[in-house]
Amino acid sequence: MTPFADRLASAVEQKGAPLCIGIDPDPALMPAGVGLSEFCRGIVDAVAPVAAVVKPQTAFFEAYGADGWAALRDVCDYARGAGLLVLVDGKRGDVPTTMRAYAAALTPLADAVTVNPYLGEDSLEPFLAHDGLGVFAIVKTSNPGSADLQDVPLGDGRPFWHHVAERVDAWGIEAVVGATHPDVLADARALMPGAVMLLPGVGAQGGRLEDLAPAFGAGPASALPSASRSVIYADDPAAAAAELSAQLRSLVSVAG
Amino acid sequence: MTPFADRLASAVEQKGAPLCIGIDPDPALMPAGVGLSEFCRGIVDAVAPVAAVVKPQTAFFEAYGADGWAALRDVCDYARGAGLLVLVDGKRGDVPTTMRAYAAALTPLADAVTVNPYLGEDSLEPFLAHDGLGVFAIVKTSNPGSADLQDVPLGDGRPFWHHVAERVDAWGIEAVVGATHPDVLADARALMPGAVMLLPGVGAQGGRLEDLAPAFGAGPASALPSASRSVIYADDPAAAAAELSAQLRSLVSVAG
Repeated sequence: MTPFADRLASAVEQKGAPLCIGIDPDPALMPAGVGLSEFCRGIVDAVAPVAAVVKPQTAFFEAYGADGWAALRDVCDYARGAGLLVLVDGKRGDVPTTMRAYAAALTPLADAVTVNPYLGEDSLEPFLAHDGLGVFAIVKTSNPGSADLQDVPLGDGRPFWHHVAERVDAWGIEAVVGATHPDVLADARALMPGAVMLLPGVGAQGGRLEDLAPAFGAGPASALPSASRSVIYADDPAAAAAELSAQLRSLVSVAG
Repeated sequence: MTPFADRLASAVEQKGAPLCIGIDPDPALMPAGVGLSEFCRGIVDAVAPVAAVVKPQTAFFEAYGADGWAALRDVCDYARGAGLLVLVDGKRGDVPTTMRAYAAALTPLADAVTVNPYLGEDSLEPFLAHDGLGVFAIVKTSNPGSADLQDVPLGDGRPFWHHVAERVDAWGIEAVVGATHPDVLADARALMPGAVMLLPGVGAQGGRLEDLAPAFGAGPASALPSASRSVIYADDPAAAAAELSAQLRSLVSVAG
């Protein structure tokens, strides 16, 4: 299987921008009378012309119980059928025997996954062993509370997330860095020169595309800004995604 | 709702020992011809006389897809109907909006949950806000790779997990500390004097009950050793659980 980073580069070249759209089906925000799978497929149809990746968030599917799990599989299959890469955002992290079960659950659905690195390298191996899978470890997250543990100073005065970034670089995997922290992007890129950086939090969480340039390294597919609520609950999701794509094109130049 | 720690204390007094049994249905280890829900209910029946808590691990249910999610709900309901407390072990950790969805998914099934604290206090609030729920944050895990990030030295030379333990104490929640690290239990108890400590990894992962005495603080329900594979895949799970219970009784004295 072609490595995920290479498949992403091809998708970005084809779509013209490194855009990821998060699929977070929240019953409190979804249009009345629209079913879960219908809503999710509609998002895929709306964003497929401009997005390289869709990112279903497992939590919002789990909240629907067994039906949600079936809908997660449905939207993943549907998106891949529409030529999109699928990044399943579950941020799983557990001991190796348990992570093997998570890998069995999620890798059939996904081109890439998010993981939580707190349990160390051996915990990630069941995902790392999956040929061609993109594995994105959370390094510095988009929420205000991320400071509580991620910014704790190490012996040399640097925040703890710098150490996490160095391990992610050593492990040769991809990274998640919140789009709401533009001040950390240059450091994150310097610490993880080869990683694809997923940048969630564009839009509703306050991240702005114009602040994300320092996250880009070698090539337009080296970072992957991601928006969810600001697109999928817009009056016109296709137009909202197209506008983000246009903004991204002016930020990074994609070889056509 | 009575706080989880108090409900646990009552259950431990009733059963005679603070024993937790993990329910990790692995198709490679389960008896041939036994269905998922049938297997899980059988474990509940076998351990209910002596266990205070059962701990279904979400990963092993997710590996079965939508059917697994239905079976997770079934075993949680069945165990609660049998008078057991249910600790759903998912180690979820995400930004607050996403954690609200995880709380919606998991709290209807559970008396307590495990969470990953890497995203900080605001990420845990959707669970903390749930009246009476036990919230167990992972502090020091049972796998060898736990050293990669959890043991990174802070400015004062202490391992990073000490800082996590201090936050867990300040947040007033419960903790997960691997039973495979008896050398850290005294420090963990000193850093988190009021926390119930879940101690997974007894048995197949190498943790031994006789090493766990330093984890106990105020009362026999202050720590909760947990075994999974060594009990649920034993030739006689009821006997294996009863043997652990007897060993635990000699470790902690439970007021009858």
